[in-house]
Amino acid sequence: MGTEAHEDHEAGQEWADVSPDAARRLVRAAVEAFAERGYHATTTRDIAGRAGMSPAALYIHYKTKEELLYQISGVGHRLALGILEQAAAGDGTPAERLADAVRSFVHWQATHHTTARVVQYELGALGEEHYAEVLAMRRGTDSAVRSIIQDGVDAGDFDVPDVAGTTLAVLSLCIDVARWFNPNGRRTPETIGELYADLVLRMVGAVR
Amino acid sequence: MGTEAHEDHEAGQEWADVSPDAARRLVRAAVEAFAERGYHATTTRDIAGRAGMSPAALYIHYKTKEELLYQISGVGHRLALGILEQAAAGDGTPAERLADAVRSFVHWQATHHTTARVVQYELGALGEEHYAEVLAMRRGTDSAVRSIIQDGVDAGDFDVPDVAGTTLAVLSLCIDVARWFNPNGRRTPETIGELYADLVLRMVGAVR
Repeated sequence: MGTEAHEDHEAGQEWADVSPDAARRLVRAAVEAFAERGYHATTTRDIAGRAGMSPAALYIHYKTKEELLYQISGVGHRLALGILEQAAAGDGTPAERLADAVRSFVHWQATHHTTARVVQYELGALGEEHYAEVLAMRRGTDSAVRSIIQDGVDAGDFDVPDVAGTTLAVLSLCIDVARWFNPNGRRTPETIGELYADLVLRMVGAVR
Repeated sequence: MGTEAHEDHEAGQEWADVSPDAARRLVRAAVEAFAERGYHATTTRDIAGRAGMSPAALYIHYKTKEELLYQISGVGHRLALGILEQAAAGDGTPAERLADAVRSFVHWQATHHTTARVVQYELGALGEEHYAEVLAMRRGTDSAVRSIIQDGVDAGDFDVPDVAGTTLAVLSLCIDVARWFNPNGRRTPETIGELYADLVLRMVGAVR
């Protein structure tokens, strides 16, 4: 299956910047454990074991389980924000930029669905300061999408009675791909991205 | 706050048919515990304690933690299916029926967001037979929405290149309301339902 090989290659790539290698192994092990059993049912001992390391070796890199979640959540949110800000800053029409934002974000949510689920469902387990930092990034992703939609309205290309609500719906639609995406299903990250870009252009009443 | 009182009144109503009273208290306690800590981090002892009962008293009603999850998931899925089948069988135009389906389903997902999250995120913890049963109900909800969209296409009222994909997107958009809905936020189950009904009619290219 060409598609699956492609998934396997891309999944896990989000941790390329985490170093040293031992920290990267721990993050990957933590994502798997959190996705399978949930944050609260996972111990640092479980994570160390999955990474083939001792609890003492884990402690060198992460003092607490929450620090691991924070690293995962931080990387996930930063990458999503980067994708959406890049699309917002593109030089196409608002419709082209919105379609690009949706395609890229959906692709990310589908390819990295395990990470994306942990990032979305375990927000409540972050410590207060870490949560505030993540919230600021979430406001940034909202802002990026909203600015494209507002540009389209201002240019007379879109017809949107509720810009804030439509922004929320567009992001929600893309984020939820991580919940239902099945790498063994017939829809690929690319075909879902195309379908969703079309649906979102309809949602904003884009002039074709 | 009128809205919040309304929420408090409706939330929990989904268990009205669970009897006797002790079983209903256990189901409510289990939903809270699963939502806060996740299924795997919750013990039957935790659930009994939250319900003000002993583990032995819990055992009279539910032999395992999985039986509790199955009861929660069963009730949640059956109610969602009922809402969507009722909308599909209505006697309005396809656009009216689709708007009604979205409004009612969004209202349910928002009002019962804690239950809805447990139902959606803990599917993987169901036993094999219970999962198969739930999957059949999920196919039913998909079918109900798909039939309305197909009716609209057949009547020439909707323009939908990918009926299956659009059905998936409509359900996903509604389901994800449970993730982000905030009972203290300014959007109510009713206003989200109205916004989403409009967005979904746009997604299917409904003739206005």
